Amino acid sequence: MFIKKLHTPEGVKDYLPKEAALRIEIETKVAKVFKAFGYESIKTPTFEYEEVYENKGSISEKNMYKFVDADGSVLALRPDMTPAIARVAATSFDSDQTLRLCYFEDMFRSNINYRGKQREFTQAGVELIGEKSIYADAEVIILAIESVLATGIEDFKIEIGHSWFQEGLLEELKCSKDIKEKIIKAINNKDYVRVSELSFLSQGGEKIKNIMKRLPFLIGGKEVIKNIEGTFKNEKSEAALTYLKELYSLLENMGYGKYISFDLSVIGTMDYYTGLIFRGYTPGIGFSIIDGGRYDHLLSDFGTDLPAVGFAFKVNDIMSVMVDSYKEEGCIYVYAKKENLVKAYKYAAKLRKEGEKVIVSVKEASEDDKKPKNAKEIVIFREE
Amino acid sequence: MFIKKLHTPEGVKDYLPKEAALRIEIETKVAKVFKAFGYESIKTPTFEYEEVYENKGSISEKNMYKFVDADGSVLALRPDMTPAIARVAATSFDSDQTLRLCYFEDMFRSNINYRGKQREFTQAGVELIGEKSIYADAEVIILAIESVLATGIEDFKIEIGHSWFQEGLLEELKCSKDIKEKIIKAINNKDYVRVSELSFLSQGGEKIKNIMKRLPFLIGGKEVIKNIEGTFKNEKSEAALTYLKELYSLLENMGYGKYISFDLSVIGTMDYYTGLIFRGYTPGIGFSIIDGGRYDHLLSDFGTDLPAVGFAFKVNDIMSVMVDSYKEEGCIYVYAKKENLVKAYKYAAKLRKEGEKVIVSVKEASEDDKKPKNAKEIVIFREE
Repeated sequence: MFIKKLHTPEGVKDYLPKEAALRIEIETKVAKVFKAFGYESIKTPTFEYEEVYENKGSISEKNMYKFVDADGSVLALRPDMTPAIARVAATSFDSDQTLRLCYFEDMFRSNINYRGKQREFTQAGVELIGEKSIYADAEVIILAIESVLATGIEDFKIEIGHSWFQEGLLEELKCSKDIKEKIIKAINNKDYVRVSELSFLSQGGEKIKNIMKRLPFLIGGKEVIKNIEGTFKNEKSEAALTYLKELYSLLENMGYGKYISFDLSVIGTMDYYTGLIFRGYTPGIGFSIIDGGRYDHLLSDFGTDLPAVGFAFKVNDIMSVMVDSYKEEGCIYVYAKKENLVKAYKYAAKLRKEGEKVIVSVKEASEDDKKPKNAKEIVIFREE
Repeated sequence: MFIKKLHTPEGVKDYLPKEAALRIEIETKVAKVFKAFGYESIKTPTFEYEEVYENKGSISEKNMYKFVDADGSVLALRPDMTPAIARVAATSFDSDQTLRLCYFEDMFRSNINYRGKQREFTQAGVELIGEKSIYADAEVIILAIESVLATGIEDFKIEIGHSWFQEGLLEELKCSKDIKEKIIKAINNKDYVRVSELSFLSQGGEKIKNIMKRLPFLIGGKEVIKNIEGTFKNEKSEAALTYLKELYSLLENMGYGKYISFDLSVIGTMDYYTGLIFRGYTPGIGFSIIDGGRYDHLLSDFGTDLPAVGFAFKVNDIMSVMVDSYKEEGCIYVYAKKENLVKAYKYAAKLRKEGEKVIVSVKEASEDDKKPKNAKEIVIFREE
């Protein structure tokens, strides 16, 4: 028992001053961008009735931390912010308003156990609710780009895709519901060999099976769309391509083209995304640092049918690439004898107003004193 | 089930944009003061092994939200930050360093059910670890005062007391352990009639029983100390008075005298505070907005015996008095036709750099348009 209380539970950790300061710095910078785009903060409870998070097609139930309230209700620690925002949007705002909401919250997923992944982690995110247009989608992608830039990361790509593209291909494949679900799972796991194998179990033509085989080649620059256009016929898939080209052109005109590439292989989990899907990647992190897209049916789960688009920013992952090079500002130490303490405090107050960190100590300082690790300067008040 | 998922569980709530913005503003202002005094942020997990929070004499076990981890360990949502900081201080830092740590975290207490009290609430706090001096105590009180001032509240008092004072009186009372515990409980509940009744069940002299009867009169200005001095004999209690006089004089010399009053009735829960105890009060809030004091034995629970002094700031309570008068900044709405969108975005980027909140919409605007509620200004880009 004694040993237990010295440790944190499996999968969660302490953030010591350097990491905690970096986290606050990222939060402050990203929050400033969200605010500048007119997004308003909201905060929801750390736990909710489990029903809020159930059947959203995103977080599996076994990944939630659950417990029972005094009145017998089953509560779950927040595994994902989007259903919580959907609940608030559906219950606390007029349904004819366009909502721009943002948050900076901790999420909890009990079953994450691969290396480097925390079971408690921070997400910064936005939701644009009540607008279904290419301009709303473009705004959210621009906001994602500006947020990443604000953290100081310049080398990154936002990969855009559209859920209709794969949905159309799957229609053409004419496969059973069972095979379809397996293919979607394999796509999400990036297991392209399995996707190809499963496709060949379907009724669709050779042409479409060959496209499914080439999924990894549907990720890249503008040429990806060019290469696939005209090689098959499906209204839904073609509409997706037209949309993505138009969105790209809009972003390019605004000067954001260099941050955009395409991923036509994405589909997301079933029934969640209903259009645009995007992911942000930066070298040094093997998975996405941003996940976003359009989910027009989520709010109807809470009784209000409103379109929505948004993204979440993985703050812990961003931190992991920045922490080594992060430098905290040092402190000014003011040492005084007790007769000089009032004077030392006044001097410290002046420095603090100028933005300095200042520690005042009553101390008989000598030249041999060990300098504190985070000292930027030491000021010694001598008797007068 | 449908109804359930539209609500938050008992005792927790959503913070809609106005409250959420106020919360961030308070956080930012208070964090700036903590930082200026050289306090470094730390962040601990939202849940820990229950052992971390047990037997600390502060939060009763039945007030904790508990649940079982996948490996069978019992976890508790953080009910109080101090034991968590004590754990980190004892395990992650050199024991010869003076630590100045601060935090801004949510706490969870399941059994709070009186009006206006939330079961999830935010505390901003500091801990000064490794220094046992009147100067450390003074620094923490000054930091508390400067933090309250930073939020914009000017009318408040910090009531200072010392655990030794009541401990000394209780020794003189010569009562049984059982009566002693009952008296401490009654003192903490401010049930002074009960304190008096219980005192008369003890072996102590009339003089001391009369002092116990007059506890409510031991709260107030400098005269409180003057009135009680010399009316009884007890080394411990007298040392407490001497200490409080000296501390007051130090704070007065620094210009903080006007914020200080005395509360000689405080004792706190047993075995937690070991010296200075202080509480901050402001008109309009019926309970303390700041709780602090010295607890020199808490860290030894985690294997390191270091003195510590700190306080926690009740952010939700501060918010409750400020929210009505709080005004959010408005947004600038820029309406453009799609041909002008690039231009409108460039214009918006310029305004955003100047610190404005700007929303760009593709919209055929007319003079009759309903102005959005949070609009500060509407700019219409017309064709050229």
